[in-house]
Amino acid sequence: MQLAVSSDMLVEGHHFFADVDPQALGHKALAVNLSDLAACGAEPLAFTLALALPNADDAWLAAFARGLFALADAHGCELVGGDTTRGPLNICITVFGELPTGQALLRSGARAGDDLYVSGTLGDARLALEALQGRVALPPPLLAAARQRLERPTPRVALGQQLRGVASSAIDLSDGLLGDVGHVLHASGVGARIQMENAIECIATNSYGISAGSLFDQDFLLHCVLSGGDDYELAFTAPAAARAAVAAAALQAGTAVRRIGQIEAAPGLRVVDAAGRELALAFSSFDHFA
Amino acid sequence: MQLAVSSDMLVEGHHFFADVDPQALGHKALAVNLSDLAACGAEPLAFTLALALPNADDAWLAAFARGLFALADAHGCELVGGDTTRGPLNICITVFGELPTGQALLRSGARAGDDLYVSGTLGDARLALEALQGRVALPPPLLAAARQRLERPTPRVALGQQLRGVASSAIDLSDGLLGDVGHVLHASGVGARIQMENAIECIATNSYGISAGSLFDQDFLLHCVLSGGDDYELAFTAPAAARAAVAAAALQAGTAVRRIGQIEAAPGLRVVDAAGRELALAFSSFDHFA
Repeated sequence: MQLAVSSDMLVEGHHFFADVDPQALGHKALAVNLSDLAACGAEPLAFTLALALPNADDAWLAAFARGLFALADAHGCELVGGDTTRGPLNICITVFGELPTGQALLRSGARAGDDLYVSGTLGDARLALEALQGRVALPPPLLAAARQRLERPTPRVALGQQLRGVASSAIDLSDGLLGDVGHVLHASGVGARIQMENAIECIATNSYGISAGSLFDQDFLLHCVLSGGDDYELAFTAPAAARAAVAAAALQAGTAVRRIGQIEAAPGLRVVDAAGRELALAFSSFDHFA
Repeated sequence: MQLAVSSDMLVEGHHFFADVDPQALGHKALAVNLSDLAACGAEPLAFTLALALPNADDAWLAAFARGLFALADAHGCELVGGDTTRGPLNICITVFGELPTGQALLRSGARAGDDLYVSGTLGDARLALEALQGRVALPPPLLAAARQRLERPTPRVALGQQLRGVASSAIDLSDGLLGDVGHVLHASGVGARIQMENAIECIATNSYGISAGSLFDQDFLLHCVLSGGDDYELAFTAPAAARAAVAAAALQAGTAVRRIGQIEAAPGLRVVDAAGRELALAFSSFDHFA
C-alpha cells in the first residue's frame, strides 16, 4: 500500500468568519483535507490537528470537537497527534490515507478525447457567501441549503476510491472549477472545452423547489459555478469508453456525477455556448493573494 | 517499519517575533518537528508545510526556504506537500519518520532506579530571550551564542536513534525541563529527583570563555534551565546498568549528554541541593495559556 498525505490550513477572516458555528468549523476543517484524499482515491486512516486559539474557550472547543469527530468517526479516521498554541485562530490538519501502490488518481493523466466530469453540485458555497455578505438576496430555504454546502461540505471519499482504475485524472475543487481544472490541464499537457449549459446545471437547482436559476441571471450563476470556490467536489476525466464504469462508480459511491465537457489537445480551458461559441469570461479562479 | 508523525505550529508574537530572521525561522520551524521525531528515535523521511502569510513577500519567502531546506537536506527529509494561504503569520509543519516496529522510545518506560539524562545544554534560549527583551544584559559573544540556540536549535535526531534499545523513556524539551519531564513521570507512574548542581551545569558555561554562571545568580540560572523552554534537547531515562551504552550512544551521535538525577517510585519531581534538601521552586513549566 501507498501512503497519501495532505495538509490544509484554515484561517479566520479568510476561510471562515469569526462568528462561524464552531461545530461546522470542526466539520469543515477535516472535510477539506478528506477531500484531498478523495481526489487521489485514498482511504482515510488518521490525522493530526494543530490549533492556534486566541484564548482557551471550553464551550467553543467542545463544539469544534463535536463537528470534527463526527466526520472523523464517519470515515474511520483517527486523531493521532497534534499541537495547541495561543494565536490568531488557525486550524491546520494533516490527513493520512492509503491506497494500493501505483493506483493513485493523479492530475497528470488527462488525455485528449477524455470526458470531463464533476461530482455533486458547484457554486452553492459561493451563492451562500454572496448572500451572507449581503450582495444577493436568497429565499430562506435556498440560503439554508447553500449555507449547508458552504459550512459543511461533503468530501467525496467513496467516489474517489470507486474511481481508481476508472478515471484518468482527478482533482478536488477548492478554489473554483476553472483554476482547479486548469491544474489538471497543465499537469497533463492538454486543454479542455466545457459546455456552458452543463456548467449552469451544476448549481443547486432544486432546494425546497426553488431553483437558483430562476432567481439569477446566467452570468452570475456561471461565475459561482466556474470560480466560486469552496465546492469540495471532485473534477475528473475518463475515456469515453469508460462511461458505464463512471456511472457504476457514481452509483456505488452514492454520489451524482455530471459530464460537463471534453479534454482536447489544444492547451487552454474554453467555455462554449450551445452554438459552440467561446464565452469571454471576465473572471478566473479564486486567488488567495488577490 | 513503523511510521512516526508529529505536527507543530509556530505563531508570530508567541513563538517568534515579527522581525525574526526568516532564514532562522525556516530552520526552527522544521527543527522543532525533527526534535519530536528524535524523541521517539525515528529517522526523518518527509514533511508537509502549511503556511499562512500576511502578504506574498518573495524575499522573505526565499530566505525562509533557505533555512528550511538547509536543515531538511541535512536530514534527508523531503517536502512532500502543503498549503499556502493569507493570514496572520503561522507555520505548521507535519513531519514523518520511520523506525523498526516496537522500538519507539516512549514517555511511559521510566522505572524507579533509572538515571535521568539530558542532552546538550539547557536554558540558553531563555537566556537569549531575557536579553533580547531587555531584562538582563549579556556580553555580546554570550548573547550571540545563546541567540543561536534560541533561533537555530539543533534537533537531536542522531542521538534519538542511537538511544533505541538503550533508553527506557525519552521526550524532547520544548516547554522546559520541569514540565516535559513531568509528562514522562506522569506517563510512567513514577517520580524523580534532580540534583541542583547538575542542573545548573546544563546552562551554557563556555561561550567564548564567558560563563553565564559568573554573571547571574543561581536562582536565575535554575529558572532558565528548569522552565526556560525552547531547548529542543532530549531528556531520557536509562537503567544504571546502561551507563556505558548511553555513553557509547552519545559518542556515536556526537552529542554530549549529562546525568542530572534519578527516577524514584514516589510521585512528583524534586530538585535537591548538595545536602539533599528539596528546593522550594517559585516557577513551573512554560504554559501557552498563562
